[in-house]
Amino acid sequence: MAWTLGRIAERVAGEVCGDPQRVIEGIRTLDEAGPRDLSFLTGSRYLDAARRSAAGAILVAERRADLAGDQVVVADPARALARLLEELYAEPVPAPGVHATAVVGPDCRIDPGAHVGPYVVLGRGVEIGAGAVLHAHVVVGDDCRIGDGARLHPHVVLYRRSRIGAGSVVHAGAVLGADGFGYTSESDGPRKVPQVGDVEIGAEVEIGANSTVDRALLGSTRVGDGTKIDNLVQVGHNVAIGRGAILCGQAGVAGSARLGDGVVLGGQVGVAGHLEVGAGVRAAAKSAVYSSVEAGQTVAGIPAVPIGLWRRQQALVRRLAELWRRLRSLERRTGLAGEEEGER
Amino acid sequence: MAWTLGRIAERVAGEVCGDPQRVIEGIRTLDEAGPRDLSFLTGSRYLDAARRSAAGAILVAERRADLAGDQVVVADPARALARLLEELYAEPVPAPGVHATAVVGPDCRIDPGAHVGPYVVLGRGVEIGAGAVLHAHVVVGDDCRIGDGARLHPHVVLYRRSRIGAGSVVHAGAVLGADGFGYTSESDGPRKVPQVGDVEIGAEVEIGANSTVDRALLGSTRVGDGTKIDNLVQVGHNVAIGRGAILCGQAGVAGSARLGDGVVLGGQVGVAGHLEVGAGVRAAAKSAVYSSVEAGQTVAGIPAVPIGLWRRQQALVRRLAELWRRLRSLERRTGLAGEEEGER
Amino acid sequence: MAWTLGRIAERVAGEVCGDPQRVIEGIRTLDEAGPRDLSFLTGSRYLDAARRSAAGAILVAERRADLAGDQVVVADPARALARLLEELYAEPVPAPGVHATAVVGPDCRIDPGAHVGPYVVLGRGVEIGAGAVLHAHVVVGDDCRIGDGARLHPHVVLYRRSRIGAGSVVHAGAVLGADGFGYTSESDGPRKVPQVGDVEIGAEVEIGANSTVDRALLGSTRVGDGTKIDNLVQVGHNVAIGRGAILCGQAGVAGSARLGDGVVLGGQVGVAGHLEVGAGVRAAAKSAVYSSVEAGQTVAGIPAVPIGLWRRQQALVRRLAELWRRLRSLERRTGLAGEEEGER
Repeated sequence: MAWTLGRIAERVAGEVCGDPQRVIEGIRTLDEAGPRDLSFLTGSRYLDAARRSAAGAILVAERRADLAGDQVVVADPARALARLLEELYAEPVPAPGVHATAVVGPDCRIDPGAHVGPYVVLGRGVEIGAGAVLHAHVVVGDDCRIGDGARLHPHVVLYRRSRIGAGSVVHAGAVLGADGFGYTSESDGPRKVPQVGDVEIGAEVEIGANSTVDRALLGSTRVGDGTKIDNLVQVGHNVAIGRGAILCGQAGVAGSARLGDGVVLGGQVGVAGHLEVGAGVRAAAKSAVYSSVEAGQTVAGIPAVPIGLWRRQQALVRRLAELWRRLRSLERRTGLAGEEEGER
Repeated sequence: MAWTLGRIAERVAGEVCGDPQRVIEGIRTLDEAGPRDLSFLTGSRYLDAARRSAAGAILVAERRADLAGDQVVVADPARALARLLEELYAEPVPAPGVHATAVVGPDCRIDPGAHVGPYVVLGRGVEIGAGAVLHAHVVVGDDCRIGDGARLHPHVVLYRRSRIGAGSVVHAGAVLGADGFGYTSESDGPRKVPQVGDVEIGAEVEIGANSTVDRALLGSTRVGDGTKIDNLVQVGHNVAIGRGAILCGQAGVAGSARLGDGVVLGGQVGVAGHLEVGAGVRAAAKSAVYSSVEAGQTVAGIPAVPIGLWRRQQALVRRLAELWRRLRSLERRTGLAGEEEGER
Repeated sequence: MAWTLGRIAERVAGEVCGDPQRVIEGIRTLDEAGPRDLSFLTGSRYLDAARRSAAGAILVAERRADLAGDQVVVADPARALARLLEELYAEPVPAPGVHATAVVGPDCRIDPGAHVGPYVVLGRGVEIGAGAVLHAHVVVGDDCRIGDGARLHPHVVLYRRSRIGAGSVVHAGAVLGADGFGYTSESDGPRKVPQVGDVEIGAEVEIGANSTVDRALLGSTRVGDGTKIDNLVQVGHNVAIGRGAILCGQAGVAGSARLGDGVVLGGQVGVAGHLEVGAGVRAAAKSAVYSSVEAGQTVAGIPAVPIGLWRRQQALVRRLAELWRRLRSLERRTGLAGEEEGER
């Protein structure tokens, strides 16, 4: 790439403070940027780094007198950065065609504009849309459908009848459609309940590396359009996730839970089975949602409670030693000392 | 499938309330079932859905006057459902034989009734039993043994000398036999302790997608017959798990821990190393078992304690604000007010 | 193997108490060892097992009168064991060469001493050093560099431009360089921020099975020399981990966190994004590091606090019932009983 600062500003509806003819060849962090790089200041915590930066220009939210280099003033530097990265660092798209080593089952319908990479294995009756990309070693079970422009990274596995919407991305090692975890309890131990449903992933969904989405007992496990799932996340059978939700790394959702549109689960959050998490609910990292949560709430803790309540409880737990001191003082001063019971 | 309701009832020792000649073509959830489907009512929370359901017939625990369609009354609808699914939705079994693209090392013994799929790679001296199925891209190290009827889904990896019992199922991406996590602490950092043991999985075990079971330092990491392990579960080196245990999604068991028969770990439970969890112990989701637990207990919390104690502690934590109010009131009314110490 | 006890003692600078001509053919645990095996006593908790052991000889820290068999007295039995395992159980190294089924992109530079196994897929411009081993089904993206003697186990995936230092080991199913999890919040849902950085793994690093290390937004996600990462661990984009750190199973580190040299994260620990964990910090299993931690501290809890404080808080929580009893007693005896407010 080699763009002028003026052209960059135009693309992000920004204003140049400095030389619009300056040539920018890359985007780098404040610490790593040089005179031919653009960098960005997305929060005051990075202000010192911005002052020290050798960047040729910096995306800023407002013009700053304390920065040496040129500036591009935009409404939201983080968004402007994202849009510039989209334009300047587009991923190369592999050429259409089916690699000679791919094993293709009977009755598959592969759009001629799709890319099917080396050692991909397709079962019977698989449909692959225009512009879809299946990287090396992807395995697709019988009767799966992969939408236009979807990308499956190496080693992704789809069990039979999984459906991936248009434009969705599944990262390496993710497994969609494995058996849900269902057993009946018998006298000689757990006995498997066959899981005969499937998985339906909407459009523009992203699923992280080595994450797992189980197929339903009956019907479908569903992930709605635009939802983003990070790495090593577990989604149990018959879960239904709405649109535009965000599940951070190592979160887990147990069977038949329902998550509304725009729900955000922090890292390592757990959601118990058979409950309802309303639209827009946010659960803090590491919290455990043991019961249903009404739309719009932010919760934290194990078990998860509204975050304000959690903060107050935490503050009170931190003051337990003081509580004891004051109780003992009162006992002493009233002459009504209790007996220490020791730890139990 | 196309079974009469009478035949279905016969298979599950149930009683038809309605037309035994009714033809059933599928099993669906209450919401999705139509007049040619069987559905099921497994708990009172689904009663409204049952009343609204268009299902031709519903499996119920007792005859209900408030349901419109036919009913099949059985002792346990969940078990009856499981048995019908087994009969009506049996998984297709791939044809026996070794795919032309499989790479087979020297001295392997593959039963002619086994299926070895495309791009499977077998090391030296691998034994595969009758009716075993190795799906595409499975990699099996030297001297592994795979029992009769075992199924390894795509991309499963077995390191050398792993043994899988008859009828066990390993889901896609699971890794058995990777090095245990053992290091000595040296002045220049951690130094690896070679892990020279192996992994032994019993019969009728199920291991979920992308789960990991490490091989032992010496001897074997063991998973007993009939134990079921969900997705993304970590089992450390030298762990011994008994028969019929259940480990839910994202649970983790650290090295050398011993879990008795029938132990149930909820989702995201952690068990520390070198401890003993007695037979039948149940640990609630997200709990952390830091010390040994006697057989038969149910525990919860971080650290895990008996669940009754955990509930009482949680209730008391929720009442801390009240405790403070009453203490302050007492201080005020006795005229012996303490000094606020502020938060620390 | 078949070594005399005298030769074994020499290798670990130990002293034989018994017959230096005794022939040892294997190393086994105390329970499993027989007369031709060496075993080891690494802590007093195993003393009973040592007394019962049929081992021909035992590595001990000091000569013991209560053991029947021969002894080899060494300064540190665990280290002596590790060194003997290194010598006696060296992993076989696959023969150099590129397997006929490997797909090699243009402009790759593969050292003739490297091993590239069956069905490995290499992109464009990949460099592989002397003695490196890529096991079956490894997929390596464009422009990756794999150092001398590095080992990539089956199904490892490296996205483009990932770099692995000399002697590092990546276990089966691990994914390095997948997209970091970054989105801007738009009115119609989250929108992806392209992740254009990469991953740099130092020398002598070990990464466990099915772990994931995301590539940076810009710049590199970094793991320092000698750091050891267990199975199913998540390392977010732009994380920087120092040298000789240890991350136990299922730990997770959110984006842009910085971990100093020698940090130890217990199993299932979570570290929030954009914070600093100083050198030598230790976090107990299952803790949640929500804010920066100064070098050298040991922390525990959710949120993580210094472990001494955590233990005191836990002790006080366990005594809440007593606190209530004493408060009520005081209320009663002063005649100033408060009103029960009930649970909330």
